[in-house]
Amino acid sequence: MLTLPVALTSHAGPFRLREASAADLDALIALLSNDPVSVARGDAGSSADRDAYAQGLAGIDADPRNTQLVAERDGDVVAMLQLTAIPGLARRGATRLQVEAVRVREDVRSTGIGSALMRWVSDVAAPALRADLIQLTSDSARVDAHCFYERLGYAKSHTGFKLPVEAARSS
Amino acid sequence: MLTLPVALTSHAGPFRLREASAADLDALIALLSNDPVSVARGDAGSSADRDAYAQGLAGIDADPRNTQLVAERDGDVVAMLQLTAIPGLARRGATRLQVEAVRVREDVRSTGIGSALMRWVSDVAAPALRADLIQLTSDSARVDAHCFYERLGYAKSHTGFKLPVEAARSS
Repeated sequence: MLTLPVALTSHAGPFRLREASAADLDALIALLSNDPVSVARGDAGSSADRDAYAQGLAGIDADPRNTQLVAERDGDVVAMLQLTAIPGLARRGATRLQVEAVRVREDVRSTGIGSALMRWVSDVAAPALRADLIQLTSDSARVDAHCFYERLGYAKSHTGFKLPVEAARSS
Repeated sequence: MLTLPVALTSHAGPFRLREASAADLDALIALLSNDPVSVARGDAGSSADRDAYAQGLAGIDADPRNTQLVAERDGDVVAMLQLTAIPGLARRGATRLQVEAVRVREDVRSTGIGSALMRWVSDVAAPALRADLIQLTSDSARVDAHCFYERLGYAKSHTGFKLPVEAARSS
């Protein structure tokens, strides 16, 4: 299991990583909608979508294999990421730790917060969850993010495919 | 929930899709190790790894969000895939259905079994599990598989990153 909250450091000072609660919902929606790639996929931060986000967060909270994390600095949520532990057969029965929806608030980027988060994922969270492999996908448009993950040691070895379910049913 | 088993058709005749049981373990290991990309990652089919695979399958079986499927024809397991339903916040609280470790036995490839499996995933499994989006990654070396997923309507929109946990801890 994960031991949280945890104190981490960045060039901009210390911050705290903790599990998200329902009270963080608006901050999480704001982080998602403050990103052009997310906005293009529908994360426009519309109040009409608030219930759908609340259900998503409740679904994560209810599942012991999923954890929604937030990084907090001076009482503000400045970053988010989701972890999913996935049992499996491939790679000799490897358990995978999947990282989803990594977002860092624009004004605190390049302060080392993202690196500190991802180092915590690989050095602390993955061993604690007995994961053998960490995996994530990043939109092909996010060239800076790709360099970021490669600097952290990730191999850019795979191609990621997505299919909206409505598109599947109408094809 | 998924309704299984289900009868599907291919150019090579009908086949049956069902949930895997512990009795399928050797057939699953054989499918994984009969693939050069998997062998290069350690799936060599060694008897020393059997317990690790058994634990992986038991982990999938024990988790209501994970399902290991096998396709059976004339009593033989000829294909496999794993489904994982993942709650989330991004894309307006979308639930994702992740497809992992798709393998089709060499002698039944190009018979439409793979297409029938993936059509069942998008047309039946995803709606049954209330998923909004289907996602998967494929090793960049699998060029034929990429064309296969694109023909099925998948967008090749993402780059997939992997980090073995041992590598992370020693870096």
